[in-house]
Amino acid sequence: MKVIKGSVTAPKGFTASGISSGIKRSGKKDLALIYSSAPANAAGVFTQNKVKAAPIIISMDHIRSGKAQAIIANAGCANACTGDQGLADARLMADATASSLNINARHVLVASTGSIGSYLPMKNLLPGIRSASKRLSEHGGAEAAEAIMTTDTRKKEIAVKLKAGGKSVTIGAIAKGSGMIAPNMATMFAFITTDANVPAYDLKSYLLKAVDRSFNMTVVDRETSTNDCVFILANGQAGNRMLSGKDEKDFISALEYVCTYLAREIARDGEGATKLMEIRVAGARSEKDARAAARSVAGSDLVKSAIFGEDPNFGRIMAALGYSGARLDPCLVNIFIGSIEVVRGGKTLSFDNAKARKHLKGKEVLITVMLGLGKSNATAWGCDLTYDYVKINAEYHT
Amino acid sequence: MKVIKGSVTAPKGFTASGISSGIKRSGKKDLALIYSSAPANAAGVFTQNKVKAAPIIISMDHIRSGKAQAIIANAGCANACTGDQGLADARLMADATASSLNINARHVLVASTGSIGSYLPMKNLLPGIRSASKRLSEHGGAEAAEAIMTTDTRKKEIAVKLKAGGKSVTIGAIAKGSGMIAPNMATMFAFITTDANVPAYDLKSYLLKAVDRSFNMTVVDRETSTNDCVFILANGQAGNRMLSGKDEKDFISALEYVCTYLAREIARDGEGATKLMEIRVAGARSEKDARAAARSVAGSDLVKSAIFGEDPNFGRIMAALGYSGARLDPCLVNIFIGSIEVVRGGKTLSFDNAKARKHLKGKEVLITVMLGLGKSNATAWGCDLTYDYVKINAEYHT
Repeated sequence: MKVIKGSVTAPKGFTASGISSGIKRSGKKDLALIYSSAPANAAGVFTQNKVKAAPIIISMDHIRSGKAQAIIANAGCANACTGDQGLADARLMADATASSLNINARHVLVASTGSIGSYLPMKNLLPGIRSASKRLSEHGGAEAAEAIMTTDTRKKEIAVKLKAGGKSVTIGAIAKGSGMIAPNMATMFAFITTDANVPAYDLKSYLLKAVDRSFNMTVVDRETSTNDCVFILANGQAGNRMLSGKDEKDFISALEYVCTYLAREIARDGEGATKLMEIRVAGARSEKDARAAARSVAGSDLVKSAIFGEDPNFGRIMAALGYSGARLDPCLVNIFIGSIEVVRGGKTLSFDNAKARKHLKGKEVLITVMLGLGKSNATAWGCDLTYDYVKINAEYHT
Repeated sequence: MKVIKGSVTAPKGFTASGISSGIKRSGKKDLALIYSSAPANAAGVFTQNKVKAAPIIISMDHIRSGKAQAIIANAGCANACTGDQGLADARLMADATASSLNINARHVLVASTGSIGSYLPMKNLLPGIRSASKRLSEHGGAEAAEAIMTTDTRKKEIAVKLKAGGKSVTIGAIAKGSGMIAPNMATMFAFITTDANVPAYDLKSYLLKAVDRSFNMTVVDRETSTNDCVFILANGQAGNRMLSGKDEKDFISALEYVCTYLAREIARDGEGATKLMEIRVAGARSEKDARAAARSVAGSDLVKSAIFGEDPNFGRIMAALGYSGARLDPCLVNIFIGSIEVVRGGKTLSFDNAKARKHLKGKEVLITVMLGLGKSNATAWGCDLTYDYVKINAEYHT
């Protein structure tokens, strides 16, 4: 597998576009369209929040067919808490996209992100959908990535190429963060395309696995949004034979690579973040325990504040492990900040504070926890808690 | 029941003191002692964090007798993650207190709060315990309240008087916050004294109930500390007959009043807080659901940031309800900010934004949620998330 330039339009048969339709007051791009020249096998993962936005409800329904040909996504308005009107608007987004592209409306997936509780400005959005359809291009991935941004400070995209099933297969993806990010099943948006030939059923199981180890291990603020979703479309145009054995493993690990890259980018670009935190937990009794412990540390406001302050505050890491729900014997816990051991057997060590601080001054902070109870591991990603997180969220009306 | 002046020294037979023993670098008071002239019936609630500080382990052991005569508590050092040395130090705190007061060491409860991972400076602390013993007075409640403060900006104390069991009975209490506050069983410190005659067994059940509805419904930052504990000592010097019927109810509701007052004070004085948030949830299917929903809203960083920004951002409240785990039908949810209805049937209302903002400009913000599913209610308390929370926790080494 190798990383190549581009994103959702790198795989064969996919085009995309991103335009400004007038939803964002700033006039920035706010409408993204991704299109496959033929119906693709499709799978999706949706927010676990019981308050689900209208586009989530519509897309959950549409994806049951296992087929999709287009994703229409807007930023600037979440179309959540909008009742029947919101559902009608989301359905109309799909219908308008289908009619512009001359495809089946049930093959259109819809996603919205932005303020909760306001209605979509349909009179801007509908002409916008027509413009986006006309603008579709093989180079449109980057502008689509830009059009789904809200408080993100940069677009998130990736593409990889691998040999699988006797052919060269490409996977491309875009994603957005960057607030309301919590590791409770699907988080945020990620749209993944591939020209691989993969049945919808397999696609779903590959996606679930990859999402579980990537997006679901990312936490900016322990908030699960009403609009999170991850879609994958596989149009089969690489012409590969069915994936099995090593080919299947390679495809899954490429997909996991793509999801993990984007998950890290989302954490790195968390609202107000100045640092990416990676929490590796080893020696847990079960994978569930390892995941809970890693996410608890990644999500702790006190750990996140300490990282912002570049303070090797292992006590807060111990506290976050202690309330994580993971099985734990404090006397067996070892903790490293970067390569500096700061806790051994649950006890403070007299470590080189200056060296630990030096690691914390970097843009990427690594915390390694060894629980000493078993053989399960997990990694979670997060970011520091800064003045700018407060600023963004005291001033920006979600 | 009426509120009176004073705190832990208001009930008959209790004295207290607070001194500076040299643990806090600032030279502020850091050692509190509370003493009952005779052994009292006692109950305690302890942190659920699996990483328990040494004083917690010692006090959990000591309180099993159902008797206590003194509480020795220091601020500035949590004596957590300190292994065998920490346990020996905590035990020595109890022993030194017992020998200064000529009482049974097992009747001494020990508590520590402050930085995790450093050792107690015993050579300052031991003479400190002797000074605190000599300084015990009937007016010492206020200085004891001051001596347990860490990032608290003000001391927290209360006393109430009621008729129960044919006598005038007094309950007094002090508490401290103000970071690492999460509603996961016991939180922070609260020390409660009463001259009521109540058996230890009843005392424990009264305390559990009161704590569940007060401290356990308070959240500053969703962090359960390693050192949280609530103690109650009842020395029986009011001479009341056994409480039952209306008397028992009155005593329980007075105790709940005391705990709720302190819980609200802890939320109001949460690290960096400028506003107290009260979240009332009604119409839940079960009390568990009501509690989960209320705590989820109270703990949401996004809701807390919006309150700081004085922004009536009901979308974030809906999202926090949706991921709370409480049973929920979004179409039945009504939300009020102050007295302004902002969501009806899960849908945004065109409400008077200026009026809602006016309520949010106050020092106390009330959010009422009606789930429309059942008859259970709960109230939770929290505070806004501000620049100062980040500042305190990026700069203060816990």
